[in-house]
Amino acid sequence: MSEYVRAVALGKAPADILIKNGKVVDVLTGEVYLANVAIACGVIAGVGDYNEGKKVIDATNKYILPGFINTHCHVESSMATPDNYCAEELAWGVTTLITDPHEIANVAGNKGIKYMLEATRGLPINYYVQVPSCVPATPFEHAGCVLDAEAMVELLSLDGILGLGEVMNVPGVLNNDSSVLAKLELFKDRILDGHAPLLGGKALQGYAASGIETDHESISWAEAKEKLRAGIAILVREGSASRNLAAIIQGVVGDSVDTRRMAFCTDDKHLADIRREGTIRYCVRQAINLGLEPMRAIQMATINAAQIFGLRKLGAVAPGWQADVIVVDNLFNLKPELVLHKGEDVLDKLTATQKIIPDISLSGSVHVAPFTEETFNPKQFMENKEYPVVEILSGQIVTERGVVHGKDVPRLLAEGKLCMLAVIERHHATGNIGIGLLRGYGLKNGAAATTVAHDSHNLIVAGTNAKDMFEAAQELISVQGGYTLVREGKVVDTLPLPICGLMSDAPAEELIIRLDEITAKAWAMGVPRDIDAYITLSFMALPVIPKLRVTDMGVFDSENFKFL
Amino acid sequence: MSEYVRAVALGKAPADILIKNGKVVDVLTGEVYLANVAIACGVIAGVGDYNEGKKVIDATNKYILPGFINTHCHVESSMATPDNYCAEELAWGVTTLITDPHEIANVAGNKGIKYMLEATRGLPINYYVQVPSCVPATPFEHAGCVLDAEAMVELLSLDGILGLGEVMNVPGVLNNDSSVLAKLELFKDRILDGHAPLLGGKALQGYAASGIETDHESISWAEAKEKLRAGIAILVREGSASRNLAAIIQGVVGDSVDTRRMAFCTDDKHLADIRREGTIRYCVRQAINLGLEPMRAIQMATINAAQIFGLRKLGAVAPGWQADVIVVDNLFNLKPELVLHKGEDVLDKLTATQKIIPDISLSGSVHVAPFTEETFNPKQFMENKEYPVVEILSGQIVTERGVVHGKDVPRLLAEGKLCMLAVIERHHATGNIGIGLLRGYGLKNGAAATTVAHDSHNLIVAGTNAKDMFEAAQELISVQGGYTLVREGKVVDTLPLPICGLMSDAPAEELIIRLDEITAKAWAMGVPRDIDAYITLSFMALPVIPKLRVTDMGVFDSENFKFL
Repeated sequence: MSEYVRAVALGKAPADILIKNGKVVDVLTGEVYLANVAIACGVIAGVGDYNEGKKVIDATNKYILPGFINTHCHVESSMATPDNYCAEELAWGVTTLITDPHEIANVAGNKGIKYMLEATRGLPINYYVQVPSCVPATPFEHAGCVLDAEAMVELLSLDGILGLGEVMNVPGVLNNDSSVLAKLELFKDRILDGHAPLLGGKALQGYAASGIETDHESISWAEAKEKLRAGIAILVREGSASRNLAAIIQGVVGDSVDTRRMAFCTDDKHLADIRREGTIRYCVRQAINLGLEPMRAIQMATINAAQIFGLRKLGAVAPGWQADVIVVDNLFNLKPELVLHKGEDVLDKLTATQKIIPDISLSGSVHVAPFTEETFNPKQFMENKEYPVVEILSGQIVTERGVVHGKDVPRLLAEGKLCMLAVIERHHATGNIGIGLLRGYGLKNGAAATTVAHDSHNLIVAGTNAKDMFEAAQELISVQGGYTLVREGKVVDTLPLPICGLMSDAPAEELIIRLDEITAKAWAMGVPRDIDAYITLSFMALPVIPKLRVTDMGVFDSENFKFL
Repeated sequence: MSEYVRAVALGKAPADILIKNGKVVDVLTGEVYLANVAIACGVIAGVGDYNEGKKVIDATNKYILPGFINTHCHVESSMATPDNYCAEELAWGVTTLITDPHEIANVAGNKGIKYMLEATRGLPINYYVQVPSCVPATPFEHAGCVLDAEAMVELLSLDGILGLGEVMNVPGVLNNDSSVLAKLELFKDRILDGHAPLLGGKALQGYAASGIETDHESISWAEAKEKLRAGIAILVREGSASRNLAAIIQGVVGDSVDTRRMAFCTDDKHLADIRREGTIRYCVRQAINLGLEPMRAIQMATINAAQIFGLRKLGAVAPGWQADVIVVDNLFNLKPELVLHKGEDVLDKLTATQKIIPDISLSGSVHVAPFTEETFNPKQFMENKEYPVVEILSGQIVTERGVVHGKDVPRLLAEGKLCMLAVIERHHATGNIGIGLLRGYGLKNGAAATTVAHDSHNLIVAGTNAKDMFEAAQELISVQGGYTLVREGKVVDTLPLPICGLMSDAPAEELIIRLDEITAKAWAMGVPRDIDAYITLSFMALPVIPKLRVTDMGVFDSENFKFL
């Protein structure tokens, strides 16, 4: 193989693929120059005056770039299977994906993580996994698995395991929590991803001194810059909900800072958004629109990311480097017209790759102890008591904490001004059920339910009456996970998410349509249009975000970290 | 340990060492700012507002930098033992040394390489070895060892082995020489150092496509830039003889190129020169004098080098990074006033470190088959024949090819206008002796000899008569290697180099004085002052440099690669 690469480099043999007359974006030297790129055996053989290729692609007036690198994402949040998700990323030029399978690990532990790896074997993408560091995320809920350092050991030897996923337990690090430190120790020679929103001062120094090397939570340039100075690489995040790029890049543009330790990521981005605009391609485009030199933006999307994560021979167009190459129309639109992974056209390759069928056990993840309609009886809210209410704030995942009188509950439910909110443990049939009240969801005379419920992914049901809530819960048990919508005891619509109750195996296009449909039906039943009916619901059980939540263990004050 | 580091970072415990009020040169962000640096357990715990330290160092008006990295050097060329050599580097702020023990490997193979590693264990320096790729360097001479891929296998698991040393056999790479390719394959996941003087065009692409990642041979900016574009990192060389820095840095200054893939090295630098001005410190200083922004120059000397060689947590001053830190007076003089390795003052540490005594077998490396004075009888040059003459060119290691009539030889020898030049195989007592003629060495009525003889390190003797040449050779056999100078059958001076005939175990200061003395005595015997009597001699057997050489196999035309 290497002999053939050399023969091509020396001009003695035709390239497998020759990209002619393009402007090469050389992220190593920071230059752009006209050259032909000869590729052989998956490797870039030569950049220069090459003329023979078994396949020749004309890139006149176009740019030849290294494939993009998405440095941090949760594939499961797209609800697509890893193979379907990767296809969307590839179409927009991402040839390297660094993922943290935090969601599936909360349901299925190592089995889930292995599925995420196996489902992408053979795909034309460099797919790396950071092992989720916080499963379960908190002691205030029950997840499907506990992933401690001991459980992680068996993952270390798997191909594609790059390091430890975002270490969210900042207090655990700073206070020497032995279970957290055991994980840092296990991965000390690999990359430790951070997650440290608003962390600064000595706490940041302590976090960095513990070996954490990246962070994707910065929301301002001041925050990002302090982290850069602390030796932490900044993964600028631009997802569907968390959009931090403008604030940070505007800061960079006005500063003479070295950007070598900055890259891009999406964290969570909806499938429909990816399909429309891509992930890293969108980041580069936005950064350039904000005034960042195109070269620096492209370096962030390629070589910087590779260097931060120690990925050798990735992220540049140069002889001997892996032939992950994209051709784009121009540096403003950045639409990939050709995407090569190891010298193969990814779209051709995807078609030819056999689909990996997930382990059957991942399809039966919903295990709930028996319960009855009575569980959701509104009469459990006593007339002469006051109750805390989770209040949805439009456009935010932070909630407000409200209050209602028990005597008003039946009327407010009937008027569609209040919902009951139940969180049913669904992994080990423990019978745990937390029930509270929810305002601002808008649903009238019905129930909505989901098994996507951050971070433990229990079964969340919101509804105005016991019958519909019971039916909704039963429906999701019956289909083993998904989204559902029920009215007057009848299922209005169900989107099955059979893989761990998190993911559909439908093709992306179909999945996007089905998601739009069920969301629109929820809107039709009263959910305000500025709320994403299911994504908003999926955050109502997340005990790490202020101010009030419901978990399978009860109503939780997430400002003071105690159950009410 | 990590708990204590965190406590220091959080301001809850005093640092082991606190450097106060210095200007931190932050090579990650490209900024310089006032801060205190708290160090604990060998790690940088925090950079910021720290006030408690068991030991406090005031750095007011001074600069705090990461320790320098010398990316390519041959320790043996200093003739000091590795520990003594490292002491000199450390004094000038080099805390990471990447060495290629090419010389000792030619004499003693793996045993020599292991000695170079073992002799530095426990020293306050990060000492890495690139395994010599070309032992022997050519088939036109006999070295002490053959280091093929199979022999290299046992080295792979040793601590400190970083990759493969400079791959000088460029034709071997390009023509698929299986013995060369086996070495590239063996080290394919590590760093492959290159050595490709003047290589460009498709040959360069072929060399880079083979996985070679660095080069230290560029002598012009055009050459360096073409290599950078080919994905090859440039190690800008500034040694005692090869001085490439000015040509390359002047090019960089006039160019907007990204310098992230550029670093500094010395290759070969004399001990006296290091003692006077340092190595990488001198490179940084010269680069700044030539107009390079100090930050870019310091990045080349630190973080760039670390990134090129994949050395994690080295090369920057940031929490969690290894506490290899230097304090310099200013950015023009760059004299280190404090050098820390893993938070320890290197000078203190050096004093406390026990000297490693080399393996006794390394001290008996000179094995020569019996020979007599007759071997050097000038009558072997027949009166009626013409003979090629190696002609020394002042200040160069390239030689000219001259000619003399055999009938003139006795007269020219007697007048001191010609020397005989003998190269005696000295590793395996094969009896191989090559004899030729040398012009321009200037020696009158005597002989000089050395066992430092690139690359195979046979025994070189230059002299005007058989008796002195015989005595000189016998003297070096007797002391088992070194430099010697003989006149009228008597030894004028000998510098023993007992370790493989390459290195002295004398302290650097003593060694420098002894080198000066014997060189001055050679000058007194007629060697011109613009020639370094022994270093020049040591290159007279190097068959890879034009135009004429003598090896143990005979007189060699190194332009046409054939014996005469």
